[in-house]
Amino acid sequence: MRRQEFEVTDRSECEEFLRERSDGVLTFAGEDGWPKAVPLNYVYADGKAYFHGSKKGEKMRGLSLDSRAEFVVYEAHAFIPSYFSDPYLACPATQYFRSVRMRGTVEQVEDPAEKARALAALLASMQPEGGHAPIDPEDPKYGPSLRGVAVMRLDIAEMAGKFKFGQNLSEPKREKLIESLAGRDRPGDARTIEEIRARAPGPKPSSGPSA
Amino acid sequence: MRRQEFEVTDRSECEEFLRERSDGVLTFAGEDGWPKAVPLNYVYADGKAYFHGSKKGEKMRGLSLDSRAEFVVYEAHAFIPSYFSDPYLACPATQYFRSVRMRGTVEQVEDPAEKARALAALLASMQPEGGHAPIDPEDPKYGPSLRGVAVMRLDIAEMAGKFKFGQNLSEPKREKLIESLAGRDRPGDARTIEEIRARAPGPKPSSGPSA
Repeated sequence: MRRQEFEVTDRSECEEFLRERSDGVLTFAGEDGWPKAVPLNYVYADGKAYFHGSKKGEKMRGLSLDSRAEFVVYEAHAFIPSYFSDPYLACPATQYFRSVRMRGTVEQVEDPAEKARALAALLASMQPEGGHAPIDPEDPKYGPSLRGVAVMRLDIAEMAGKFKFGQNLSEPKREKLIESLAGRDRPGDARTIEEIRARAPGPKPSSGPSA
Repeated sequence: MRRQEFEVTDRSECEEFLRERSDGVLTFAGEDGWPKAVPLNYVYADGKAYFHGSKKGEKMRGLSLDSRAEFVVYEAHAFIPSYFSDPYLACPATQYFRSVRMRGTVEQVEDPAEKARALAALLASMQPEGGHAPIDPEDPKYGPSLRGVAVMRLDIAEMAGKFKFGQNLSEPKREKLIESLAGRDRPGDARTIEEIRARAPGPKPSSGPSA
């Protein structure tokens, strides 16, 4: 059910999500022709996604034969139980979430400077507190490790966001849902309420005259 | 870097993880030949994975042409910063995680009884508190919805678990890591320490004579 209400066409909103997260699933055709799904850490930098891994792994083998890939990053938000809106049917049960899918081709990064920059960005996102010497290809202590690790770059041809936060609901249903979530107050529910409010169709207090 | 230390060969351990989680990424070739990565909720029941969705979506279109798929479920656990083991190099930084990958073929479930059973299992895992009428194909209130929704079944040919919790570390390094994690005590660190201890090579207090 690809509903247009949930599509995020603003690239900067997708990018903000990508900068917030640190793991996703890289999808490609394996050397045996089967689809492969590999979870990994990434960093989104300079409009590209970077990964690292072994030079001899299945990613390298598959992607060297067919570099087409899709990478998806997602986060599950509140689960909406059916009884929030229907006392009988199970059908309205649904999961709110954010996801961004990127398709493009994956190349191995060979340039030592780009490689070091990508690894530094990856580490800065995972370990923002620092606590290591700068990753520098000229530093002899880093040289062998940098040469030994593979860095892959996804050159993104298309990016598609899907953020589901009740954008399809009428105002009375939305208000009822917000009330139910506030009453339940599980971890993540407060955040979901914020997203529901921010994404409600119609004029927003801060968005000016456009509908 | 597919290290054998991290591979989980015990299927029941993979299954336990699959029953704990509720979302993953389904991977297949799209009708345009590109790899597709679709995050979705699932339930693992009767040795199969079930999903639901629209009858007209991209999953249906792609999988009806080529039913081969891989489905991956993963959870990120503690991030291990480089300075836990090295004051200079960034290289030891790593992510602990659990992942299970399943490959097989996806079929659309047509039998109303199996369809209702799968949806009931899916809902029971997401909404264990109940609060809806049993999903019954004979119930006229459910009939149209059941006919309208697509249920897909992944018939699993292979299942591979990879759980990374420092199984490659020497005992002194493992103890130092546990101490560092206990000192940091971020959310998830206590759980990671349990996993590290439970998976440490060598005889366990409760595992009898095997090594």
